[in-house]
Amino acid sequence: MELTQINQFVNYQKLVEKAISDMDIAKEPEELYKPVQYFLKLGGKRIRPVLCLMSCELFSGDVNDALQPGIGLELFHNFTLIHDDIMDNSKVRRGKETIHIKWDTNTAILAGDLFQVMALDYIMKTEPEKLLPALELFTQASTKVCEGQQWDMIFEDQEEVNLRDYIKMIELKTATLLAASLKLGAIIANANPNEQKLIYDYGIYLGTAFQIQDDILDTFGSHEKTGKKVGGDILAGKKTYLFIKALEKAEARQQKLLLLLLKNQEIPPDEKIKKMRDFYILLGVKRDAEKARDKYYENAILKLMRIPVDDNLKNPLIELSEFLMSREH
Amino acid sequence: MELTQINQFVNYQKLVEKAISDMDIAKEPEELYKPVQYFLKLGGKRIRPVLCLMSCELFSGDVNDALQPGIGLELFHNFTLIHDDIMDNSKVRRGKETIHIKWDTNTAILAGDLFQVMALDYIMKTEPEKLLPALELFTQASTKVCEGQQWDMIFEDQEEVNLRDYIKMIELKTATLLAASLKLGAIIANANPNEQKLIYDYGIYLGTAFQIQDDILDTFGSHEKTGKKVGGDILAGKKTYLFIKALEKAEARQQKLLLLLLKNQEIPPDEKIKKMRDFYILLGVKRDAEKARDKYYENAILKLMRIPVDDNLKNPLIELSEFLMSREH
Repeated sequence: MELTQINQFVNYQKLVEKAISDMDIAKEPEELYKPVQYFLKLGGKRIRPVLCLMSCELFSGDVNDALQPGIGLELFHNFTLIHDDIMDNSKVRRGKETIHIKWDTNTAILAGDLFQVMALDYIMKTEPEKLLPALELFTQASTKVCEGQQWDMIFEDQEEVNLRDYIKMIELKTATLLAASLKLGAIIANANPNEQKLIYDYGIYLGTAFQIQDDILDTFGSHEKTGKKVGGDILAGKKTYLFIKALEKAEARQQKLLLLLLKNQEIPPDEKIKKMRDFYILLGVKRDAEKARDKYYENAILKLMRIPVDDNLKNPLIELSEFLMSREH
Repeated sequence: MELTQINQFVNYQKLVEKAISDMDIAKEPEELYKPVQYFLKLGGKRIRPVLCLMSCELFSGDVNDALQPGIGLELFHNFTLIHDDIMDNSKVRRGKETIHIKWDTNTAILAGDLFQVMALDYIMKTEPEKLLPALELFTQASTKVCEGQQWDMIFEDQEEVNLRDYIKMIELKTATLLAASLKLGAIIANANPNEQKLIYDYGIYLGTAFQIQDDILDTFGSHEKTGKKVGGDILAGKKTYLFIKALEKAEARQQKLLLLLLKNQEIPPDEKIKKMRDFYILLGVKRDAEKARDKYYENAILKLMRIPVDDNLKNPLIELSEFLMSREH
């Protein structure tokens, strides 16, 4: 399944891209608004607003009402990326320099702050009678995303992380905003609380599966297909699903070696990646990660199937879910 | 006039302090919520929520409805302080270590981000029929505060700053949130648009006068009365009203000396402060700053007097304005 084959997704993506390029962004001070414009133009798949529109359509809502609020979630996502890039000292985002590298840290802090304000400005474009539930969803999700980022930083400094805590962290940091995007579309389409909960839960499971898949691809994907540098997580010393599971399964002696290897900065990059991969294969954790991913994916689909609307309407979301799991680009 | 003599202010301050200490703050992850709690306990005069309550009372509104939204503005103010402290690398805030010093920069970025989320959470407690204007006020003010902070950073790197641009900057960075606090109280009290505009303009003028007064006190105040280290702006190389006005009035030769002195890091601190003060006195800019402050202050009071409510009701705000101008503590 290619993304371009999912008609609904592609159409909504165009709609979102157009709306973003039509955004009326102030010009002055240009030291603030140039980085904002720059980041907006970095693109990305715009998955969050598209999910909002797809969910709105699933519940037979008017997608025109969901477009601007959906963009609010994309703006919020951009805020988190800009600040996360500072915290992780990431130098590249979507093939271009991150804001704190191209400009400086202060500029990136403030541009991120402004994205958070802009996010609210767009969420506020939700129709008045649905504004309060939309805002409640937004603040709850925002809080969780901040908490998730904090757990992520805590785990980086912590020798042992348990797998349940890791899953909780990616749920907060990644899955929550995807789930909130879907629920926002449902709120705007007047879906009932049961339907809202089902689509939200679908998003949580899907987002968790998606992040595990991301962990797998970062280590075992091919550069040609993903376009990303393979092994980035290993070189950055990140504790991914694969690493945590490996540590859990390893014997005491292997555990020490794994931890030493993760922290080792002197070993040549390619050798470090190869050694870590060999460890993962030896311990069978690639397979474990795939199983976990499949379990979350299945749970996601089960939630989606329980939504009491015509099953045909669910096809675009099912196709998108499949794409996200197989995505090699 | 002492702050403790303004009964209305003191009562509302207690109310606000109690509500803040009653706030239900999550515990986990404590790496995120401890800094949040720490910063909330640093105190401060809570001027923004108190202004919100005073304005609500001025327009005969129910102050109970203004308490939680007013606290939203205090939380927003805290967000700006935490991020500004990172950007300025300020080490002390209200006599205690700033978050990025006591913890680290990443913690401070994320704690600030969370304060921005919490701010919205409390603004949302505005009664539903006034929620949209409250949120519009909030996002507009938030945008301006970010822009003001950016201008402030731009001016730090810029050799010459003109006085009109400086005033515009302090209007955005400082006066806007004070004015928005007053307008929020007016919105909640069902004041009409004309009244809302008058109290907002009062806040803009008052806030501008307040910042000029702050510039004067930082250089010419006495440590015993202000409790602050006198000359902090000079040592930090800040372009204050005094400095910009001095540069404007100085001859070419003096201009060079002023700029060299401001940037000079080798001269002993006390000597640097004394030399800069002597410059200011020689050029008569202390008096100029006082005149400017008085002009903004008078404009503030004129706006307040034009508000069509019983003049007696305005006394607490007039007393507070006087206090803010004379404040030596």
